[in-house]
Amino acid sequence: MSDNGPLHGVTVIDMTRVLAGPYATMVLADLGATVIKVEMPGYGDDARHFGPFVNEKSAYFSSLNRGKKSIALNLKDNEDREIFLNLLESADILVENYRAGTMEKLSLGWDVLHEKFPKLIYSAVSGFGHTGPYSDRPAYDMVVQAMGGLMSVTGHPDSGPTRVGTSIGDITAGLFGLSGILTALYDRNRTGVGIKVDVGMLDCQIAILENAIARYFASGEIPQPLGSRHPSITPFDAFSSADDYIIIAAGNDQLFLKLCETIDSPELVNDERFKTNVDRSENNGPLKIAIEEKLKLKSAEAWLSELGSAGIPCGPINNVAQAVNDAHVRERNMIIKTNDPVSGELSMAGNPIKLSGYSDPRERSPAPELDGDREEILSGLK
Amino acid sequence: MSDNGPLHGVTVIDMTRVLAGPYATMVLADLGATVIKVEMPGYGDDARHFGPFVNEKSAYFSSLNRGKKSIALNLKDNEDREIFLNLLESADILVENYRAGTMEKLSLGWDVLHEKFPKLIYSAVSGFGHTGPYSDRPAYDMVVQAMGGLMSVTGHPDSGPTRVGTSIGDITAGLFGLSGILTALYDRNRTGVGIKVDVGMLDCQIAILENAIARYFASGEIPQPLGSRHPSITPFDAFSSADDYIIIAAGNDQLFLKLCETIDSPELVNDERFKTNVDRSENNGPLKIAIEEKLKLKSAEAWLSELGSAGIPCGPINNVAQAVNDAHVRERNMIIKTNDPVSGELSMAGNPIKLSGYSDPRERSPAPELDGDREEILSGLK
Repeated sequence: MSDNGPLHGVTVIDMTRVLAGPYATMVLADLGATVIKVEMPGYGDDARHFGPFVNEKSAYFSSLNRGKKSIALNLKDNEDREIFLNLLESADILVENYRAGTMEKLSLGWDVLHEKFPKLIYSAVSGFGHTGPYSDRPAYDMVVQAMGGLMSVTGHPDSGPTRVGTSIGDITAGLFGLSGILTALYDRNRTGVGIKVDVGMLDCQIAILENAIARYFASGEIPQPLGSRHPSITPFDAFSSADDYIIIAAGNDQLFLKLCETIDSPELVNDERFKTNVDRSENNGPLKIAIEEKLKLKSAEAWLSELGSAGIPCGPINNVAQAVNDAHVRERNMIIKTNDPVSGELSMAGNPIKLSGYSDPRERSPAPELDGDREEILSGLK
Repeated sequence: MSDNGPLHGVTVIDMTRVLAGPYATMVLADLGATVIKVEMPGYGDDARHFGPFVNEKSAYFSSLNRGKKSIALNLKDNEDREIFLNLLESADILVENYRAGTMEKLSLGWDVLHEKFPKLIYSAVSGFGHTGPYSDRPAYDMVVQAMGGLMSVTGHPDSGPTRVGTSIGDITAGLFGLSGILTALYDRNRTGVGIKVDVGMLDCQIAILENAIARYFASGEIPQPLGSRHPSITPFDAFSSADDYIIIAAGNDQLFLKLCETIDSPELVNDERFKTNVDRSENNGPLKIAIEEKLKLKSAEAWLSELGSAGIPCGPINNVAQAVNDAHVRERNMIIKTNDPVSGELSMAGNPIKLSGYSDPRERSPAPELDGDREEILSGLK
């Protein structure tokens, strides 16, 4: 069991701010890479100024930047620029999430850097990517959630478009960017040369539309928000019991059979309306009524126990407190902590990539103060 | 520009079904890996039976399995098992998304396979991961969206918990699994030995809670659904104009200043209630009223043009048809096609990881018929 992660020895120069880029470099740091944040002197990463704060340090920033180091550099200043280029000399990966063209204005675009540092992998995570008519537009999460169609399929039929309650526009771009970086690392082992990874947040929203896109192209019909129901797998919904709602996801014929047996409704199995998944999806309304009629006889807890014993995918609808305190979540080390010199002990989400042979520490290094690792970083350059 | 992707030469044995696993192996195939689906004879991947259908072939299945090959093997049959083990002999990666313990029952668990094929990377994407109290439970997307807290923060204050309109529980697990696989490939180049990647869908839901988790741990307060508003960045919301809603995301002081100028409300900048992002988040209600008062004077289109010119992140709320037909989305090659022998031409989402030096084809190979590549796969073993 190695305490160094699999990316130990990989150095990342991280010019990213807010969420999409920092999310990608957070996972790189979790996997053992050395991540050096290069921040604007005085202000730093925008997320340093976003709440919630614990002892005046942003806990939001801390949760996304644990285990990274920070140096403040003004790239328009000659001396700082020299330091930056020296950092790139010994780096493997540069990650930035500026608007397209920003790095070129600093004379630090891919073409320039690739010529100077042919081994360097350059990863850009931007709102709209580095090509196409919108490439010079700025974007934040909600802009791409809205433009990419995700908000139009989220919500209840009468609620109108709804934002996903977490910044999925940023996070999916961070994850695709991460995969691009890891692909480039693998590629460089073969070719000896770095490549450019160009990930646009809007592109990633299209990439995650999954069956909404398949339905639109197959039928020409525009997918609508369906509340909590799955659009083409049935029964797959939130159902009311005697007290709380529960989720039941009986995704194939065998599970539907087991469900009917467990709720003591064997007659549903041979009902012509419910024979196949396609039939059940078409007759979702009457099927839901039939299922809830039985579910209303017992509590959510009782049903979750019975359905669980029968092997039917089901679960409670947890709030955030219930989710982060769940015994399984804790056992999987999905809530870790940092011991922050300013904020004290902070809890945050762990790394879901569990790898054999590598430890998965319950405590990670805290997020850096702005310019907090200057001496260490500069001495590494000597 | 290479027409082979960066993962050309990497062979993936793909036992995954439905969405999370197939999503990961789809990206591997997009990046050039040879992906061989090993499916149950007769029935195959569950997703083959999910609508929508085009000429009786599932377009949903097709969109997730483009560019892969298929062989049907019954792993309880000795002859088929022998073929399977021969496939693993020359494979780099095995991916499965069964419930924990299923592979062990087939005597094909990590321990057995790692001893037999030390270079093989083993990746498991399961509902709850391979350790912890829930590890033997089945799960589908909505179960983990509900248990992980995401549904509790999605929706409007009066709508109750809401499912994200795309299967984000599966997709994020697929993306973390993908990153785990790519990390393992990089790692194997160094060590010569494969590792096991264990990704649980519920873990991934915790990993994407981002500021909901920071807010909960900082304040002890349980995050609630906020409609379309960002919880800690303001103004960052859907606003009504003279006709449609538009998204405005002014994520820092400078953008707020520009917004106030553009809507001709300079007095808002010096208003004590709106001085910093923290102030604006606390006084979100009156700020929204003040902004909408001005926005109601012009159409959404007019405002998007003016706000866009001023460099303020903004956008329309597109439906799926508008999103997939958007000029920028098309220019970025985010809608690709396959020429399916059964369904004909199919359109689907492209690959958002754009890499320099590698082509990003507008047409990909179609999804395989069940057992459709048996001869080719068997002849490759000779």
